[in-house]
Amino acid sequence: MAMREKNIAILGATGLVGRTMLKVLEERNFPVKNIRLLATAKSVGLKIPFKNFDLIVEEVSESSFDGIDIALFSAGKTASKHWAPIAAKKGCIVIDNSSAWRMEREIPLVVPEVNAHTIKNYRGIIANPNCSTIQMVVVLNEIHKHFGLRRVIVSTYQSISGAGQKGVNKLLSEIDIKENKDPGQIAYNTMFHQIIDENGFTEEELKMINETRKIMEIPELPITVTCVRLPILGGHAESINIQTEKATSVEEIREVLGRHKSIVVLDEPMKQIYPTPAHSRDRDEVFVGRIREDKAFENGFYLWVVSDNLRKGAATNAVQIAELYLD
Amino acid sequence: MAMREKNIAILGATGLVGRTMLKVLEERNFPVKNIRLLATAKSVGLKIPFKNFDLIVEEVSESSFDGIDIALFSAGKTASKHWAPIAAKKGCIVIDNSSAWRMEREIPLVVPEVNAHTIKNYRGIIANPNCSTIQMVVVLNEIHKHFGLRRVIVSTYQSISGAGQKGVNKLLSEIDIKENKDPGQIAYNTMFHQIIDENGFTEEELKMINETRKIMEIPELPITVTCVRLPILGGHAESINIQTEKATSVEEIREVLGRHKSIVVLDEPMKQIYPTPAHSRDRDEVFVGRIREDKAFENGFYLWVVSDNLRKGAATNAVQIAELYLD
Repeated sequence: MAMREKNIAILGATGLVGRTMLKVLEERNFPVKNIRLLATAKSVGLKIPFKNFDLIVEEVSESSFDGIDIALFSAGKTASKHWAPIAAKKGCIVIDNSSAWRMEREIPLVVPEVNAHTIKNYRGIIANPNCSTIQMVVVLNEIHKHFGLRRVIVSTYQSISGAGQKGVNKLLSEIDIKENKDPGQIAYNTMFHQIIDENGFTEEELKMINETRKIMEIPELPITVTCVRLPILGGHAESINIQTEKATSVEEIREVLGRHKSIVVLDEPMKQIYPTPAHSRDRDEVFVGRIREDKAFENGFYLWVVSDNLRKGAATNAVQIAELYLD
Repeated sequence: MAMREKNIAILGATGLVGRTMLKVLEERNFPVKNIRLLATAKSVGLKIPFKNFDLIVEEVSESSFDGIDIALFSAGKTASKHWAPIAAKKGCIVIDNSSAWRMEREIPLVVPEVNAHTIKNYRGIIANPNCSTIQMVVVLNEIHKHFGLRRVIVSTYQSISGAGQKGVNKLLSEIDIKENKDPGQIAYNTMFHQIIDENGFTEEELKMINETRKIMEIPELPITVTCVRLPILGGHAESINIQTEKATSVEEIREVLGRHKSIVVLDEPMKQIYPTPAHSRDRDEVFVGRIREDKAFENGFYLWVVSDNLRKGAATNAVQIAELYLD
């Protein structure tokens, strides 16, 4: 066992995802020799508990990555562009949660349930996909394997924890207003991520379209995406409509998904049982319910997919990638 | 002018929609001779302001409808099944906000912008459609008239005011929890309306499917609906994906919709301008934004449609139907 133990660094250790990474490493009993918590100067000296220890946050520098086997990054795009090549050059496996590297041709974009094969014999920078993409592809991949996926139309219901601690604080500071007067308000209202192109798409929507195609290796997959941010504290939900290539049934889809260890089917319509963000809280699985036949389309089906965006959507997926390097 | 004045009754006058009906009648300066507020025994004696008066709520009885020209109902399905035929028999135009009569073949289901023709020379019970249906068909009808509507896929983002004052109170009582632990919680979470059939559809979803087809007079319209209730205080939003028959463009759709007096186009992507429930608050129009081309499908387009569910989705639409009887 000792041979398997790894030296780990977490860059962005004080953020919501960084802290969750630490929690997930502990819960999954990841074989850790040493952990180094890294952040910018302003967080230096902060103590964060891990098992029976208090780890102390250090300022990131080039030497931070000496002797590190696996570096988990969740410090944003700019930090990642700078530090990931430095860490990789020092021999680290860098698992990066930002969008900096995801669409680079030579960088694997990995959801272990879907495309672990892309990092066989690979060392270097690995991109951890966007939260809403991860939970969706875990489910779509099973459907694709069994029935073939013809097209996907999805509208998301995303929690504000995707905007980090700042987003959560904004929502909590607004709840006492008890009205929705201000279009800029997150409480009692809806909002979108940043619209970044002339065609009107948000960054989040483009990520879901491009990353899904890359991870599933279906470059031409017809996929329609609208991403919405809501006054939900944690957990992303997705209303997904699919058409499959082969004919199938609600029962068969339930059975296929229910067999997968990363998926929990919560779907008893007449008992009003279906997943909500509350179900997904602190869980590593992806929850699926409201599986319905869509008679408007040939081989059409509805799915409602929910997962903890800080867990499977970020920290858990990153740690699962790291686990692929344990064997 | 005096000749046009009508005697009005409101059944369910103390509910969220009933009160909004009164407000809308006042704002639109509806020519009222007399208003009678009707409710069950438990609300009798309650005072509700209208213009410079305090109207006093009376208990509904058969004689309540004597001399009434137009009766606006928002008292639920059971009350409506009982009282609407009684009021109609006494010669009232009954405009009913419940789902009791909507799918009856001989009952007009009316959105004035779409199918006012169905009540030409008609007297009797008229059904006011479901809130999420009304705001959607106002927009889809314009698209259909100009470009032909091939299919519709919609996921809704509905406010808790759709569940009445009880729903609003539940949300407000939960906001101090500041967590989303409980799947039954509305605060910080998502929920669905009542699932009512073995195929897993909620009542709200079936309403949207069936009512849209009836109002638009396209009985075979392929339409896919998922309805979600959210911790939003007022205003429903809808993520709609359509295919049109004829080729068109985002600019042309903006122009066609922008011309309609009941529609406000709020769509300047690069300025991050789009409608939110907060925009729709106390407004009678339907707001549209995030109009995008969907390259995944031939003649595919995205729409984001928002409206005040108590207004155009209920009270305003009912009063607009009543206005059709003024000429």
